Formats: sequence, structure tokens, C-alpha cells
Amino acid sequence: MDSKQNGKRTLMDYCPDIMIMDCTMRDGGLVNNFEFTDAFVKDLYQANIKAGVDYMEFGYKASKDLFDPKEFGKWKFCDEKDIRAVVGENKSSLKISVMADVGRCNYKKDILPKKDSVIDMIRVATYIHQIPAAIRMVEDFKRKGYEVTVNIMAVSKVNTDDLDAGLSLLASSSADCIYLVDSFGSFYPEQVTKLSQKYVEVAEGAGKIVGMHAHNNQQLAFANTIEACRMGACLLDATVSGMGRGAGNCYMESLLSFLKNPKYDEMPVIRFVEEHILKLKAEGVVWGYDIPYLLTGILNSHPSSAIHFINSNRTDYCRFMQELLDVE
Amino acid sequence: MDSKQNGKRTLMDYCPDIMIMDCTMRDGGLVNNFEFTDAFVKDLYQANIKAGVDYMEFGYKASKDLFDPKEFGKWKFCDEKDIRAVVGENKSSLKISVMADVGRCNYKKDILPKKDSVIDMIRVATYIHQIPAAIRMVEDFKRKGYEVTVNIMAVSKVNTDDLDAGLSLLASSSADCIYLVDSFGSFYPEQVTKLSQKYVEVAEGAGKIVGMHAHNNQQLAFANTIEACRMGACLLDATVSGMGRGAGNCYMESLLSFLKNPKYDEMPVIRFVEEHILKLKAEGVVWGYDIPYLLTGILNSHPSSAIHFINSNRTDYCRFMQELLDVE
Repeated sequence: MDSKQNGKRTLMDYCPDIMIMDCTMRDGGLVNNFEFTDAFVKDLYQANIKAGVDYMEFGYKASKDLFDPKEFGKWKFCDEKDIRAVVGENKSSLKISVMADVGRCNYKKDILPKKDSVIDMIRVATYIHQIPAAIRMVEDFKRKGYEVTVNIMAVSKVNTDDLDAGLSLLASSSADCIYLVDSFGSFYPEQVTKLSQKYVEVAEGAGKIVGMHAHNNQQLAFANTIEACRMGACLLDATVSGMGRGAGNCYMESLLSFLKNPKYDEMPVIRFVEEHILKLKAEGVVWGYDIPYLLTGILNSHPSSAIHFINSNRTDYCRFMQELLDVE
Repeated sequence: MDSKQNGKRTLMDYCPDIMIMDCTMRDGGLVNNFEFTDAFVKDLYQANIKAGVDYMEFGYKASKDLFDPKEFGKWKFCDEKDIRAVVGENKSSLKISVMADVGRCNYKKDILPKKDSVIDMIRVATYIHQIPAAIRMVEDFKRKGYEVTVNIMAVSKVNTDDLDAGLSLLASSSADCIYLVDSFGSFYPEQVTKLSQKYVEVAEGAGKIVGMHAHNNQQLAFANTIEACRMGACLLDATVSGMGRGAGNCYMESLLSFLKNPKYDEMPVIRFVEEHILKLKAEGVVWGYDIPYLLTGILNSHPSSAIHFINSNRTDYCRFMQELLDVE
């Protein structure tokens, strides 16, 4: 990591260690019930390759015992055959990722040995109290031959002692990467500075890297992502036009144009917006910054109430804020 | 300025020296030709008072020799009688500001002595090469009894030597405040860090304060504003829902909720959004982040071509990017 000086990067650095993860289908799938057209998926795959994106997350590996496949698009389950229908043997520079939630994935059965799969990376999403269960999954996936990350969700609600203990457990695990996740879009950049430093310190001591996954409730997803990057995070999540639950994520277009490594090119992604995202929005698929998400972000709350508010076509924001405060 | 330590503030600081400027009608007026309804203006004035906002900018003091009053709403000219029709004698804590562009304001005639005006502050908008002309205006306004700021526009295109020379001239002037302005929304937070430090150093040495005016081309207006604030900027510009030319500005809702001084309250502004901004948007008034603004922001270009692109209902972003690159 020649590009870092004292753990901080500068704007003009080339930074060959930085990698980008496109999670449009995974976080965006939460918006449209994972019902992407085949053309959308194939074109996104090609756009990511052309743009120099490093990883593309196709969706979740959700348990079919817990979730009825008739009620969701296929990318909630990411069957091997469905991924292969898009990527074949994936003879490309783009690696393939899926997400496995602790407690919602039949991982012993549904995650094949790597030699039988076109998937490269499994990302384990966990709450802080599930970390021991997450580590059991990590070790299983590593034994099977995958790259593995652990994404600790909702850390903005976790106290420092618990977070330190969780990070320490993960440092001793076989995970390749630990993710800083701003689930509620409640962090300001200076909080990201400190948390990134903490994560990087723990991870580097254990030979791991740090990832960043931001939400846009306060229109800070991009700013927080590049701040984490500046402090040493290497694996940066983004989605096309920020598509993702509620206020959505860091915009891929912005992130690609920010990075100075010439392997990245935002134009294939912008062309994808022209061809697919505008249509999706015209069809009424809704995500992105709006006042209800700002309010849940300010209060460090789960966005579900804001999603419900917007889906109900309500615009009485002040009353909504009072409802949120009543619950807090 | 007890709240600053080594020129840097922390998130939890109370910071009594920070002041907020609402420029919804001035920057937002560029979107709707300054044609706000009287109810809009009166309710915004009341919302700002309730929210604890420090300054409200009503619009420009444009020369009626250069601009035909029949072609613009009245807030392009901000006649004394029009402001008084809203604020009376302005018996409130909210101060009133107007903007005067160098070369576009009949300032000797149109800016009355302070004793005859309800206006508190004049902001002089200048390009770097106009600074001597700006200073002549500053001295006139100070003699007349006003608070005066100088807003150097388009600094992202100014070389360091010229900027240093311009700042040095302003340091010797009677201006109360020097503004860092990201006209093209092209700055990343770490550039704002350095520029804010430079401005604060020059200004503090001369007994002045620094202001920040950001644009949202890269969805960084809020992030850049709070970064400038962290580095010591005291007078922070924002507009309701970011209303302003092109990609718009820092969102007032976000800024108010960020600041810890209990005099600030975002809810009156959010109620104003409910009552007025949603209607404005429904009527087809357009501003805010969009890909064409991202592209001009990336290229550090004036947003006018992006505004034209959007008004033409074009969505061929990739071709637009090529057109921008041809011009560069």
C-alpha cells in the first residue's frame, strides 16, 4: 500500500489497493423485490466490466426455508444456475459476490465448495450480537475456498466497548475484510474518520482490509465513502445512481469519477443509467434522498418507518418526526 | 471563539460563533426567475425566524438599467418597499441580506444609507479579476453603514497565486467576511479543508470571518459546508431543500439538524417544505442533483450547459459528456 502515508491518502493518489464493489442488485433488490429483468442484469454485468469495477454483488443467498421463492425475484437466492446464465464461466476481471445474512442463510447446504461455483466472494452481514455466529459462517466459507467479508450492521447503535470486542473477535477470524456499515445513514464524515481509523488499525494488525458501505439519508454517502477511503478503507461499496433501500447508497457514478486509478471509467455506468435506470424510475421504482430519510438519519433510526411513510404517499413530515420521537 | 481548538471544531461543540445564511430566494430565484409568491416569501421569513436562522437573503440588487424589471420577479431588484412589505421594520432576530454583483449593480444609487434601509448586510459577488472593483463597492457599503461580505466566485478555476493576491487585497479592505464559493460544485471535502484553512488564516489575521457557499453537483454541498465549518468558517449558506441554480445548494434542513446550538431548529423549515416546496416542485420548478450536473462538476465547468441539457429534456448523458470534453 505504497499510496498511503500515515494511513491517509491524498486526492491525487493512484491507490492501486482500492477496489470497488457494485451492490446495485443486492441493496437495490430491496427496493424492487429483486425483480430485475435479465437485460438489466446482463447489461449491468457488462457495464461493470467496462467501468473497471472489481466486484459485483448479485444479491442474497437467502434460505428458501425462510423465504418463499414465489414471493421474490431470483436474486434474493442467487442460485448458481441463475448467475451462470448471466456470466457463464465469468472469464472477466470482475469478481462475483453474494451476501449471506446470519440466521437467514442455509449456508451449509446453499454455499457450494468454491470449485463448483462461479462466485468469488461471500459477504456475511451480521448484527453485533451475532458475531460468533457470523464467524462460524466465515470459517465455513473460507474452508470452502471463498474470499469472505464480515459486514457489521447498525454500528451507529453499538456502544464502543461492544464494538471493540466484536472487532477483536473478527480480527482473530479468517475473514479477509471487515466492513464499516452506516446502516441508518446517520454518520457525519468526522465520525467516519474516527471509526475508519479504528477499523483499519484492527484490520491491518490482523492482515485484513477494511470495507465501507454507506447510506444516503443525509446526502453524505459519497462524502463518507471517500472519507473512509482517505483513512485507509480499500473496498468501497456503491450502486448505480445510489439504488438501494430507502435513501440508497453511494453513487457509483460519483465514486468512479473521484478515483484517480485510470482503470476506472464512469462512462459505461452513466450509459447504463441512460438505458436502464431512467426506465426503472419511470416505472415508479423509488429510492434516494428524501426528507423522511433525513429524519430517520438524524435520529439514527431504521429507515423502515420512512419507507412506509413514503409508500403511504404521506407528506406531513412534521407529524412523522413527532411519531419518530414518540418511539425513540 | 472558545469553541475552536487549533482552528478545528468537533461535532459536539456548541459553537456560538456559527451563523446561518438562508439564500433560498437569491440562489433559488435563479431557478424560477425570482417569481416567488408573496405567501412563499412571508412564510419563509417566519420559518427562518422560528428556525433560528441568522440571515435571510432576499435576492439581488440588480441594475434596472441592465435588467428590465418587466422580465424578472421583484426579488432580482429587492426594492426597499418590497422588502418592507414582508418584514415591516423587521423587529426580529433575523438579519436581512441582499447580493450585489460587481458590474451589475447601480450601487451608488440603489444602495441607500443604512439608516434608510431595513437591509443589514450586502454581499458583493465578484470574480477574481474584479476584486479591485469589488473593494470599491465594499468601501461604499461600509461607509453607508452595512455589514459587508465579499464572495469570490469560481475559485476552482483560479490559480493559487491569483487567489493569494486577491485574498490579500480583501484582507486590507473593510469587508467583514470573505466567502469561499464552490460555484461549479467541483470541490471534494479535502480541497475544502485546505482552502478553508487558507481563507481562515487570511481572514483571522485581518479581524474578519469566513463564509462558505457550496453547490451540490457531486452531492457534496452539505459535506463541504460542514467541513468548512469544522475548519473555522462561521457564516454558512444553505437553502430550503437545496433550492438553487442547477444542482442547488447545501440543504438548510440538513445544516440545521447538524448544528448543536439549541437556538437552531430544523422543524419550521421542514414545515415550510411541506407547505411550499412540494408545491413548487409539483408546478415543475426543477433543481437538484442530476447526472448532467455531476458531469459539469467533475469537469469543473459552469452548470449552464447542464441546465440547457435538462431543459431540452435530453437524457443522452454520454453524448453530453463528449460535448463538454470538446469544449474543455
